Amino acid sequence: MSKARARRGARRMVVLTDGKLNIWSAKTAVSVIRYRPGEIACVLDRKAAGRDLHALIGTGKGIPIVASLKEALAHKPNTLLIGIAPVGGKLPAAWRKVLIEAMKAGLDLISGLHTFLNDDPALAQAAKRHRREIWDVRVPPPDLDCSENVAKATKCKRVLAVGSDCNLGKMSVMLELTAEARRRGYDAEFVATGQTGIMIAGSGIPMDRTISDFTNGAAERLVMERKKREILFVEGQGAIGHPAYSAVTLGLLHGTAPDAMIMCHCPTRKVTHSVETPIPPLPFLIDLHEKLAGLVCPAKVVGIGLNTFEMTETAARREVEKTEKRTGLPATDVYRFGRVDKLMDALERHYKMRKGQR
Amino acid sequence: MSKARARRGARRMVVLTDGKLNIWSAKTAVSVIRYRPGEIACVLDRKAAGRDLHALIGTGKGIPIVASLKEALAHKPNTLLIGIAPVGGKLPAAWRKVLIEAMKAGLDLISGLHTFLNDDPALAQAAKRHRREIWDVRVPPPDLDCSENVAKATKCKRVLAVGSDCNLGKMSVMLELTAEARRRGYDAEFVATGQTGIMIAGSGIPMDRTISDFTNGAAERLVMERKKREILFVEGQGAIGHPAYSAVTLGLLHGTAPDAMIMCHCPTRKVTHSVETPIPPLPFLIDLHEKLAGLVCPAKVVGIGLNTFEMTETAARREVEKTEKRTGLPATDVYRFGRVDKLMDALERHYKMRKGQR
Repeated sequence: MSKARARRGARRMVVLTDGKLNIWSAKTAVSVIRYRPGEIACVLDRKAAGRDLHALIGTGKGIPIVASLKEALAHKPNTLLIGIAPVGGKLPAAWRKVLIEAMKAGLDLISGLHTFLNDDPALAQAAKRHRREIWDVRVPPPDLDCSENVAKATKCKRVLAVGSDCNLGKMSVMLELTAEARRRGYDAEFVATGQTGIMIAGSGIPMDRTISDFTNGAAERLVMERKKREILFVEGQGAIGHPAYSAVTLGLLHGTAPDAMIMCHCPTRKVTHSVETPIPPLPFLIDLHEKLAGLVCPAKVVGIGLNTFEMTETAARREVEKTEKRTGLPATDVYRFGRVDKLMDALERHYKMRKGQR
Repeated sequence: MSKARARRGARRMVVLTDGKLNIWSAKTAVSVIRYRPGEIACVLDRKAAGRDLHALIGTGKGIPIVASLKEALAHKPNTLLIGIAPVGGKLPAAWRKVLIEAMKAGLDLISGLHTFLNDDPALAQAAKRHRREIWDVRVPPPDLDCSENVAKATKCKRVLAVGSDCNLGKMSVMLELTAEARRRGYDAEFVATGQTGIMIAGSGIPMDRTISDFTNGAAERLVMERKKREILFVEGQGAIGHPAYSAVTLGLLHGTAPDAMIMCHCPTRKVTHSVETPIPPLPFLIDLHEKLAGLVCPAKVVGIGLNTFEMTETAARREVEKTEKRTGLPATDVYRFGRVDKLMDALERHYKMRKGQR
């Protein structure tokens, strides 16, 4: 967050979800609500207004959902955050009016869209007129360069989330692991690589917005700037087999040079998100990731993070058992079973380290 | 090339190599000289001036090498092309003076650097003053988007060059294959994906300069715009195991969805170019590429293009035999042995097609 914001005090955010308030379409909203609950004034969603937020998305107890900007203002916000991320990241034309009204009412804007709000003449003009700040989270640093293949030589342990698809909870698993590592006394940091992670962490690089020749280099920089930490938990991006996003995924894998990976997987998904292609079996994917990572730095997949949101309790438990049997690795759904400790135990075994109490 | 240039007639180019005239450092110069010989007025290289161009780089018979811009002007050029591509692609500060003098003398500029000449205030101003044109080849189309995973459904045959490293001749192998396919009567097109290829072909997208989220989509567009062709030969980029460039490589692989790949390899190279990491054995790399490509579209590596430039004739012949034995695939050095027909034969077998005379 900028210095201007720091001077004005803590954020109180309206989270705009525009009729798409569910855990798949409103990934940004759900995560910011889950990991920054104290900063949320209300959610603005014309379709879900009046409903119970926790019942809808499994987090955000007590946070109201309102139908209009006018109602939202009654909750005294100072910021509007765009909480949904359409494919391609473009700004829906209808939002422009709402965003200008919000600035007129004294709100700053936070956006993770590919289209930068600051580049929109009408929005930029309104921000200037009303002295509001627009934070385009997806603007990468201006001075990126090619990777020099140095992350692998750092002393910090580098854990990367990978996945059988995009949009299935890689960021959440790493946030939970960071919290668990800190509980055990490790000097751990969550490394944000996407717009939502950056909104939560307050720093990071939007990997998917870098120039492709510098994508590996951007990932490397994230590690080099934090190399004095004991463990880094790097937010994953896309999937190595996703037809649209695989460039970003491999750049992140080679740039950060992980020595351990957590494989994230949604058992109810048979084809990749949005642009459909079949998802291969987990053992095949684990082997492929270890081979690919090993081209730069030897790495093992040490645990599986499952997203069982759409399964019954019984089916989810069966899936955990089945996954552990098929892969020989510990598996869990860190939200459903609250057992992120299983994955942290696996990392301690992998790194042959032990600290703190369980 | 632009409309303005088309109006003024054919190019006569000074190729600037600035003391780096050899086949490794002056990749752009060597390729443009080889594939556009009729458009080259002279080479400007202070260190190699007066020497025999063909003896130095194996092509460009009879083209003079001069030491200064003044000498170059005696050969009546209308364009200056920057013929070397430093890592990161930045403009060496010392060149600015020469480029401005060239424009003053009536020359247009062509550059494939990451730093756009048009963004340099002094160069842009000089271009305007002297009514010269600066073609920054590396500017990608402004309207790229995410891949929709549609290239795999096109009827054209899609052949992609892949490699065990960057900078070992992938583009050349595809240019030679395109020529051979045309000799056999196929409606074939070379698809340029890098600055040099674009200079030679006159169209294409600089894959390494795309926004990473759109890299796969850019590759897909190259195929979709040419889907009515019989065979596309797509210029490869980087290498799946290159620590700095692998994002670009995988984006190109998944975006173009090849059904056949030609693996390019330089036997004398043991670690990757510039940013060193060990190059794994060819059979491992072939298997890895087929697995990765197969996530989007089934594909086979059907032949090996070797770069034996630094080997003796005997060693090169032995290497071809050894490679064929190890991989079970036809191998050749398309320049040294002039046997690109072996690779085209392999493609005809793969696609079960046959046309023309051999």
